[in-house]
Amino acid sequence: MRERFVEWRPRIDDAIEDLVPRVVEETYLGEFFGEATYQYQAEAIQAALADPLWDLLDRGGKRWRAILLLVIVEALGEDPEEHLSFACIPEILHNGTIIVDDVEDGARKRRGREALHQVFGTDIALNAGNAMYFIPLKVIDRNADVLSDSQRLQAYEMLTHELNRTHLGQGMDIYWHNQKAVTVNEQRYYEMCACKTGCLARIVARLAAIVTDQPDEVEHDLAAYAEEMSIAFQIGDDILDIEHTLDQAGEFGKEFGNDIREGKKTLMVIYTAQHAPAEQVARLEEILWAEDNTDEEIIEAIDIMQSVDALEYARERARELAASARGHLDDLELEPEAESDLREFTRFVIEREA
Amino acid sequence: MRERFVEWRPRIDDAIEDLVPRVVEETYLGEFFGEATYQYQAEAIQAALADPLWDLLDRGGKRWRAILLLVIVEALGEDPEEHLSFACIPEILHNGTIIVDDVEDGARKRRGREALHQVFGTDIALNAGNAMYFIPLKVIDRNADVLSDSQRLQAYEMLTHELNRTHLGQGMDIYWHNQKAVTVNEQRYYEMCACKTGCLARIVARLAAIVTDQPDEVEHDLAAYAEEMSIAFQIGDDILDIEHTLDQAGEFGKEFGNDIREGKKTLMVIYTAQHAPAEQVARLEEILWAEDNTDEEIIEAIDIMQSVDALEYARERARELAASARGHLDDLELEPEAESDLREFTRFVIEREA
Repeated sequence: MRERFVEWRPRIDDAIEDLVPRVVEETYLGEFFGEATYQYQAEAIQAALADPLWDLLDRGGKRWRAILLLVIVEALGEDPEEHLSFACIPEILHNGTIIVDDVEDGARKRRGREALHQVFGTDIALNAGNAMYFIPLKVIDRNADVLSDSQRLQAYEMLTHELNRTHLGQGMDIYWHNQKAVTVNEQRYYEMCACKTGCLARIVARLAAIVTDQPDEVEHDLAAYAEEMSIAFQIGDDILDIEHTLDQAGEFGKEFGNDIREGKKTLMVIYTAQHAPAEQVARLEEILWAEDNTDEEIIEAIDIMQSVDALEYARERARELAASARGHLDDLELEPEAESDLREFTRFVIEREA
Repeated sequence: MRERFVEWRPRIDDAIEDLVPRVVEETYLGEFFGEATYQYQAEAIQAALADPLWDLLDRGGKRWRAILLLVIVEALGEDPEEHLSFACIPEILHNGTIIVDDVEDGARKRRGREALHQVFGTDIALNAGNAMYFIPLKVIDRNADVLSDSQRLQAYEMLTHELNRTHLGQGMDIYWHNQKAVTVNEQRYYEMCACKTGCLARIVARLAAIVTDQPDEVEHDLAAYAEEMSIAFQIGDDILDIEHTLDQAGEFGKEFGNDIREGKKTLMVIYTAQHAPAEQVARLEEILWAEDNTDEEIIEAIDIMQSVDALEYARERARELAASARGHLDDLELEPEAESDLREFTRFVIEREA
């Protein structure tokens, strides 16, 4: 990550702290959420919202959604410093989805520690995660002095559209996960990625365009860039999981092959299901569906995928998507340095090693 | 419930079906959520959204939030028929919160059957519940032909405001629930009700005002009416739980004293904690905190509350709130029949017997 992005990270956290402070007081509650009819209780909201939110954020995360928004703003010729509060929107949304996803999956770990619902209880964690879906919407309202009525309405309609599709994507992913047979086709896999991962990236891009008052075509091109980059990122992530498995297999004490253990229907699995002989496909489905897997089964599953060159196919598709994402930038008039960063991101998402 | 409200109920369900049909097809998905970039999968969204939503709705529920919206619209001199899609907004939101609350509480039952996450799995149920937070926002966008830009912006900002406060109220309630000692005061209890239950009722009232283009004062008065009625309803609900317990105690095979078993910090508990002798309060806290309760403990807890006339106190407060709610209607120019219904609701919420 470039030096200046690293410098932005604490600034982004400061901006998030302006929205949800680490120490909650009643004056903040009245100011941010509107006056109480009777009386708020700061310590309850501290425990129910601020503590879980900061526990998760302080564990790490690159804040790349916020950074991407700031780079796009810069590419559009505006000052990123003035748009820090908008950069918090996709970042808080993203961390909210992490908490909710972990409850949905019954996950035990997150960023190297216990999942939030394990630490705080499902009730507190889930309510905090859901609050993090609505706090970002408040940011639009709070910026009525810098955004016109029309910009705020555009932002709300955009967020409504993208957050609805996020839930469609998650629904498709869960549905496939709950089935043994691999029935998904490639187009639907891309759609799931476009909805589940892509919509948050589209929020990043479209919000940057809306708050800087761009024409519709610019917003559209930036959204398409962000969406395709996200799909490439998702495929890249799945390839990385297999590559790590191949590197680590046999090393003492290391758990590997997480995606296979979880039974994830990745692009490689889908491709294999369509190109390998029926009995190999059946065996792959069996391994993916099993409650537990031996290390040998993990290797066997990868061998089946390798037998039809599924990794190579996925890598090729990710490269094509990344190239197509870059193509959406071609017609835009962007600041050269920031544009070069935007292009660099599309390479990074598939070439990275961790 | 009056005859005409009963007649509205199937109309409301038809309107919800227009938003989320019982049978999902790809054409609907493209029309409602926007064209797919690649390809949706109707059967996945059927299983992940339509099936859980309709499973819950078909179990019953009076749809009173939708009905209240239609009555307010009528009171304001407009035709309820034309506002059915808006009436779906609070109804879908409410049913979404039910699914999410049941996951948060680890509830086993809902409307006489297994809780949704027990039937569909936590992943599907929770994603559907959360989708039901965002589908209603789509209704605003979809009505761009009948709502002006300014009305849509007002609606989004109102929904953002109220849905944020809903999560504050839920956070306060969970926080108290997770503590043994009763530290809540009355003002904060009312605030919790105003946020957790009241905000959805405020959405009903404010939305009715916004879509019929009322002045701010009218929206404000209607919101205050709805909020106070909700708090009265909540207190009435808690009184009813105790009254049922007193009626049923000793009857063979009936489970009773649910609120005490759950350790709910009701207004009666809070009042008792402030007015009973310290050792009685300690005993009450012990019974509320215990994992399980015997029937004798339930009766003992009620006796402690009765010793300071906590039920009578709560009933009196509910009556005051209901009267105050009616007072907010005094300055409004409303259609007489519908106004009389609105006043009747405030009596029903505390006098009902089930």
